[in-house]
Amino acid sequence: MNPTIELLKNHRSIRKFKRKDIEKEKLDLILETATKASTSGNMQAYSIIVTKDQKMKQSMFEAHFEQPMLHEAPVFLTFCADFNRMRKWLSQNKASMNFDNFMSFMIATLDAVLASQVAAIAAESLGLGLCYMGTTLASAHQLGEILECPKNVIPVAGYVLGYPDESPDARLRLPIEAIIHQEKYRDYNETEICEIHSQKNEEGMARFNHHPDLGDIDNLARVYSELKYTRESHLKYSNDLLGYLSRQNFMENA
Amino acid sequence: MNPTIELLKNHRSIRKFKRKDIEKEKLDLILETATKASTSGNMQAYSIIVTKDQKMKQSMFEAHFEQPMLHEAPVFLTFCADFNRMRKWLSQNKASMNFDNFMSFMIATLDAVLASQVAAIAAESLGLGLCYMGTTLASAHQLGEILECPKNVIPVAGYVLGYPDESPDARLRLPIEAIIHQEKYRDYNETEICEIHSQKNEEGMARFNHHPDLGDIDNLARVYSELKYTRESHLKYSNDLLGYLSRQNFMENA
Repeated sequence: MNPTIELLKNHRSIRKFKRKDIEKEKLDLILETATKASTSGNMQAYSIIVTKDQKMKQSMFEAHFEQPMLHEAPVFLTFCADFNRMRKWLSQNKASMNFDNFMSFMIATLDAVLASQVAAIAAESLGLGLCYMGTTLASAHQLGEILECPKNVIPVAGYVLGYPDESPDARLRLPIEAIIHQEKYRDYNETEICEIHSQKNEEGMARFNHHPDLGDIDNLARVYSELKYTRESHLKYSNDLLGYLSRQNFMENA
Repeated sequence: MNPTIELLKNHRSIRKFKRKDIEKEKLDLILETATKASTSGNMQAYSIIVTKDQKMKQSMFEAHFEQPMLHEAPVFLTFCADFNRMRKWLSQNKASMNFDNFMSFMIATLDAVLASQVAAIAAESLGLGLCYMGTTLASAHQLGEILECPKNVIPVAGYVLGYPDESPDARLRLPIEAIIHQEKYRDYNETEICEIHSQKNEEGMARFNHHPDLGDIDNLARVYSELKYTRESHLKYSNDLLGYLSRQNFMENA
């Protein structure tokens, strides 16, 4: 096993950080490395916003569901799908306009997420730790306003970053055969669904044992859809995000 | 510079491959490593479909815009946003249903793209090369049918993978200050847009010099929006993808 594979296999999310800044040279190297990530047509349809200022973190705190790690980590990186820069370049060169539609948003989202993962691995290789925060997507419209994103720019991914002050066990993943399909998607029968998840229930429930709203929820599947990710909240976030896409000029129609 | 950073900084897309299969142990290691990627709430809302069979590649050829590298590479990996497995598990455990909406699709897309990038880096660390194919997203509905994706499963990213038979120069990226913003998004003025792209025009145009449809297109910005990514095509792909999301049960409303 080479050192890169070893690093990748040892990934775990870090939520507790030392009170220690990230050296400027180190952060610059991470960000520069991120820009080498694969990108559709070499368009680099993304931007990275670096948050270090405590006041800025405070203004993002509610949008990130008041998770304390936002304040504990010295840096938060927000990765934005961005066709603003490209469209300004088109305009300057008297080129036809494009990139104001849903496919453009998806291309830019992929670019942003690929760059985020490359930055994450670069950071981990330098002894830093991070935790992706899905709240970036759920609160994209609030964060876009706070970060002053112009039209055609949408925050899609983000994470806290800093020196780890914990060394958690790796989370239990599904067995590999649950994820991989040969040649075609082979759908799962009842027995397979049960077997695939058999190990996960115990590990997962242990994380929620002391949750104040657990009530009579007695299995991990119910934790997921009745406590952690309710349909009501997802429908709200969906509406918020689709509305924001529209306002940010990413939903033009044929 | 550690070996991982060096690897990440040396990334380039590979489009020509040796006629050599990928050893099973190597591919298994890559895929297993991918499953260690960050994933929202440890849900692993993605599946990976491995295509090796020449007949399957032929059936995907048109959807991938007849790019020859699909046949030349021994393996194509398709990364799908997948809440089918999760929903079957919820149903089995008599949990409330969710994950049938746009936010769920976006969460699953991020999971799939993160896993794809981790697999890509693992593969590169083992001497393999790859090229992401944006056609996966543009042709998601055709590929979903060919790969027999059930509801709540959408192909979102994919790449050819194999032993490189070329060693291309790195593509020129935008200067780092074009991508990074401190604390807030700082929009670009005309001079900055010009300067940011000044190096890119020459390198980019060299790639399109002999394109049969170049016509009177005289700058790279016009190549992008009038030749490579026309608005007409993007609007069609947008409609196709939004329609497919709806049919695949990812567009339920509040």
